[in-house]
Parts: sequence; C-alpha cells; structure tokens
Amino acid sequence: MHQLTPYVPGEQPKIRNLIKLNTNENPYGPSPKALNAIEIEAGNSLRLYSDPSSERLVNAITQYYKLKPQQVFVGNGSDEVLAHTFQALFQQDKPLLFPDITYSFYPVYCKLYRIEAETIPLNSNLEISLSDYLQPNGGIIFPNPNAPTGHGVGLGEIEMLLKKNTDSVVVVDEAYVDFGGESAVTLINEYPNLLVIQTFSKSRSLAGLRVGFAMGHEELIAGLIRVKDSFNSYPLDSIAISGAAAAIQDKTHFEYTRKRIITSREQLTVELEGLGFNIIPSQANFLFVTHPQYVAADLAADLRVRNIIVRYFNKPRIDQYLRITVGTDDECKTLVDALKEIIKNESNHEG
Amino acid sequence: MHQLTPYVPGEQPKIRNLIKLNTNENPYGPSPKALNAIEIEAGNSLRLYSDPSSERLVNAITQYYKLKPQQVFVGNGSDEVLAHTFQALFQQDKPLLFPDITYSFYPVYCKLYRIEAETIPLNSNLEISLSDYLQPNGGIIFPNPNAPTGHGVGLGEIEMLLKKNTDSVVVVDEAYVDFGGESAVTLINEYPNLLVIQTFSKSRSLAGLRVGFAMGHEELIAGLIRVKDSFNSYPLDSIAISGAAAAIQDKTHFEYTRKRIITSREQLTVELEGLGFNIIPSQANFLFVTHPQYVAADLAADLRVRNIIVRYFNKPRIDQYLRITVGTDDECKTLVDALKEIIKNESNHEG
Repeated sequence: MHQLTPYVPGEQPKIRNLIKLNTNENPYGPSPKALNAIEIEAGNSLRLYSDPSSERLVNAITQYYKLKPQQVFVGNGSDEVLAHTFQALFQQDKPLLFPDITYSFYPVYCKLYRIEAETIPLNSNLEISLSDYLQPNGGIIFPNPNAPTGHGVGLGEIEMLLKKNTDSVVVVDEAYVDFGGESAVTLINEYPNLLVIQTFSKSRSLAGLRVGFAMGHEELIAGLIRVKDSFNSYPLDSIAISGAAAAIQDKTHFEYTRKRIITSREQLTVELEGLGFNIIPSQANFLFVTHPQYVAADLAADLRVRNIIVRYFNKPRIDQYLRITVGTDDECKTLVDALKEIIKNESNHEG
Repeated sequence: MHQLTPYVPGEQPKIRNLIKLNTNENPYGPSPKALNAIEIEAGNSLRLYSDPSSERLVNAITQYYKLKPQQVFVGNGSDEVLAHTFQALFQQDKPLLFPDITYSFYPVYCKLYRIEAETIPLNSNLEISLSDYLQPNGGIIFPNPNAPTGHGVGLGEIEMLLKKNTDSVVVVDEAYVDFGGESAVTLINEYPNLLVIQTFSKSRSLAGLRVGFAMGHEELIAGLIRVKDSFNSYPLDSIAISGAAAAIQDKTHFEYTRKRIITSREQLTVELEGLGFNIIPSQANFLFVTHPQYVAADLAADLRVRNIIVRYFNKPRIDQYLRITVGTDDECKTLVDALKEIIKNESNHEG
C-alpha cells in the first residue's frame, strides 16, 4: 500500500474569522427542517444500529427524482459512492477515461483499485468535449459541471455519448449540477449504462453530514450494493439519514439558497472581469479565474495574508488559475476589495 | 464483483414493541453529554466539511487510553476500520489466520480484497486457543472476547502470541472488551505489530452514530491513514466526531451502564442455566447458549412469535446455539418467561 498517492483535500483551517472560499462549501446554512430532523434523532435510539438500507433517505430521493428505490444508492459522502463505483464498475480490461483536468480524487481511486486509466485533455478553452471520448474504454467518468473549471456540457452531448458508447458504464458526477447545469437523471430510464452521482455537500449545504448518492439502472445499483455490503453494512448514521431526507424534501430552502448563489456568482464574475480577470463561464458555485498580469500563486498567498483562502492547484495547464468559491455577497465584496488592494499595491510596486 | 458474498447483518426490524436481542446493542441510551454535543453540532456549521483528521475525537481517545495521536485511527464504524485494516495490512503472500467461528465479516473482507485466508478451528469448548496460531501467516485477526461465543482470551496468551509472531500484524478486535475482557491496548507500546480495534457501538451505546477506531504503532496507523485518504477524506461527519468525543469523556455513564449490563448478564446466565441451557462463560454483552433437549432454530422461531428476536446462525458447529443480547432486566425477565412457556408447551406436547 506504500505506492498509494492519497487525495489532498482543501485546507480545513481551525482559525476563526477566515473567509473560506477554498472548498466550495455553501455560504448559507442547511435547511432548518434538516436541522430539526437531526435534533429529533439525537436521543436514546442512537443506541440502535442505523437502517442498513437507509430506506427513509432512499425514498426521499426516489420521490424527488421520480425514480424507483432500486435505482438509488446512498453512501457516506459522494466520495464513498465514487470509491464503490470505481471498485464495482470500472475494473475492466480497457482503460477508464476521464479528463486531464478534473476532480483529483479520480486518479487516486485508480491507484487504490489498480484500474488502468487514460486521461483525455480538455480542449484549449479548458472544456470537456465528449466527442473526444469515442474510443474503446472500460468506463467513462466526468464531473458535470467539471471541477475545478465550472464548465458544463449539455444534455445533448451526453446523450450523443450514451448512444455511441453502449458497452461500458458512463458516470456523470453531478456534485455541482444544481447551480446551473442540466442533470442527466432524466436519461436514466433510457440508458442502462448511465450512473449519475450527486451529493448533499454543496447545494444542500450539508458537507459536514457526509451524504452522497448515485442513481441509475437497477443492475448498476445492485453492483454498488454488493460492494457496500462487503465493506460496511451501515455506512450512514441515523442522524445523516434523517437530516438528508429532510433536506431534500425542503424545496423552498433549496431554491432560495441556490438562486442567491447563482446571482452572487454572476455579480462576482462581472466584478472580477472588471479587475482584468479572465473567467471560464461557470455553472457551479465557484469561479475558475486567471489574470494575465498576476501570478496566481502570489495572488492566493496575498489573499491568505488578508484571511481569505482560495484554492490554488500547482498543476500543469492550470497553474495560473485560482478556484474561488462563491460566498455570501459580503464575502464576495471583501474578496473583491482585497484583490483591488493587492492589484493596486503591485502596480505601485512595479511603477 | 459478482463473486462477492456480502455480509448479512442481524435484522433491523421496522416494527415497534419488539424486544430486540439480536444485534448486541446496548439496552441503555448513550451518554447525555454525547447527546448534548450532538445537538450543539446541529447548526449552520454543518455547511462546512467535517475535520478530515477528526482531531477532537482522536484527542479524546488519546487522553482516555494515554496514547499519542499518531497511535490512533478513527473511522465510520469499526466495520470501515476493519475493511481498511484488511486492505492496508493483510495483503500478503501467506494466508491470514482467523477462527473458524467468529465475526462473519472477516471472510467477506477477504473476498473483497482477494486475501487468502486459513481458518483455525476453535477448540472443543468453542474457545480460541492462540497456540494454534503459531504457523507461517500474513496476519492474524480475532475478536476478544470472540463473537458469537463471548469467550475471551487472557492478556498473557496474547502476549505469548506477540512474542512468537513478530513478522506479521496481529489484530485484536475488541468490540466487546468493555463488558469484562482485558484490553490489549496496554501492550501497544511494546509490540509494534499489534493493532487493537474498538467501537462506540456497544459499550458506548452509539451504534446509530457509526464510529470505530484502531490503536497501534504509528506505522500501522499511517498505513490505515494512507488507505483512508485514498478512499474518503472525511469519513466521519461533524456530529459523529463531537458525539463520540463527548461519549468517551463521560466515564460515569460508561461505568454505570456497563456494570449494569454485566450484572444482568450474570443473572440471566443463572436463570437460563436453571432452564437447562448450557452457556459459554461470557465476557461480552451477549450469551451464546444451547439446550440439550431443544432445537435452536425452533426456539428462535418460537421467541420471534412472542416478539423477541435473538440471533441464530445456521452454520456448522454452532447450529444448535442462540446468541442472545443482554437487555434490560425487564427484557431479560420477559425472555426468560417466554422460554419457560416455550419449554413447558414443548414438554406438554412431548408428554
């Protein structure tokens, strides 16, 4: 196991009063109904094991997306759901395909489960072009919208891929889809090789509760359940089951907060463009930005000094970009003010 | 993955008013301090990811057992901790050794991670005899006390094994140790190949919160962390971290409830012996019992009709045994009364 290269998550600082725009958390709290469900669960019944099939949560997701319970799988965060997906569905003779710039946990899973992979480069605009994936493969996975770019592909392109790629599983990782993307859930009944993965961590504002889920043909779900039942009978605690079920039932809170985030994103885009940043149009709750005159790593460090954390990836092709989570309007304003100051200081220094 | 044989957990019935003595849950509720910590955590901060290193909980365990943080690993229930242990520490050229009658998840993990295993038969009293494990191996694992028998081995015998078996990892699975066994935690600083695994599900009465942990030499812990960070950065949610930390700090509740369970176990042992049952002396919160005149499966079915669930394993060597969780004194009395009735009816029927 010494050959593993673990995933390195964004910093979770223990200092208070930081503006934390580095791990794409929701700036608004979870549904009050979810918090209420959690409090109700905090009693003597915690002495009992949680429901191994998380029926209450599966049913809530089923109702929300109009699916059958056999089409839904839940897990301890979408990372666990992804891990089981790699182990259950991607161990094939041909290589798994995913973008060269994407969620950096994918290559980690490949090492963990010894899965051969081939990365497909994003195009020159840093966009996924699904026509590049039409080659022999043992599976395809991509986030939609993609992380860390925020760019989304349309349902038409996904359907084209599904029509032409029928011999392997296609996984659409929709962690950020609720902020403006088009979910492929609507294609599940038509394409038995499609698996859609979502999370409660972003649009449902429950990153701290660790709940993710997958939706697809019941045979794919049965494969995930087989791995889950060989790994951990009770992956979700009773509190997570109840809290997440209540969260997905609260459409009002969900719509209100996600729309606020979308509005703030559009406003922040305009302001950063005003400062000279180039921004990939985002369908997510973050912006992927680069500035032609400033070194991205330096900007990140200068923001850190001002108690603002953004995410910087020291990786080929994207080492001049910053990924900035869309915060509250106040947080966005503080960020823009800080960037103005940094840019002004730099200009003075150069002049 | 079609070759997997998933673990089948004990029934988690959705009917109320059942006396549930089948999955070794604690009949008393969790520490009120744990419940309070959970309620405090049920707020807006759930929008943020939980601490990936679960520092607060690791520190609480460290203090309780007087260890260093580098000697402690936490996970989403001891089942997840066991799974990572099998993947990180048992993939060797020689076979893993474990008892023929033991926690039935062990062979499931072996299949999941393609680990060769050899089972060592319990002796004729259904006891683990560690001198039977002195043979070439790629690891050794056994529960102490063993499940489903409840029999415990002494620290002296474990130390003998550790002295003679220095080339592979020895895992002592102490899910039930707080009900009367001797923990091997005290041997950790002396034997770098010893890993001790415990859970919050039994003596801490938090089965529904899903928290387990491992303690051992920092190199073993580092191996587990490498697998964990390649699988799920945030295996514990914020509520589980805080609730479990508060639970292990509440020594008063822990001592009071575990002593009550031990007293009830001794009383139940006497009563069942009075009904003619043979019972393996138990160091756990359950009894493993057999009756020379009655078929175990029939007794289980007769109890089920009376709304009492106990665990029956249809497996070689133990198919005439029942595993009965020690409940409250009231639950134990209802069980004994039901068994008296069943036995009386059967006698009438036969006579």
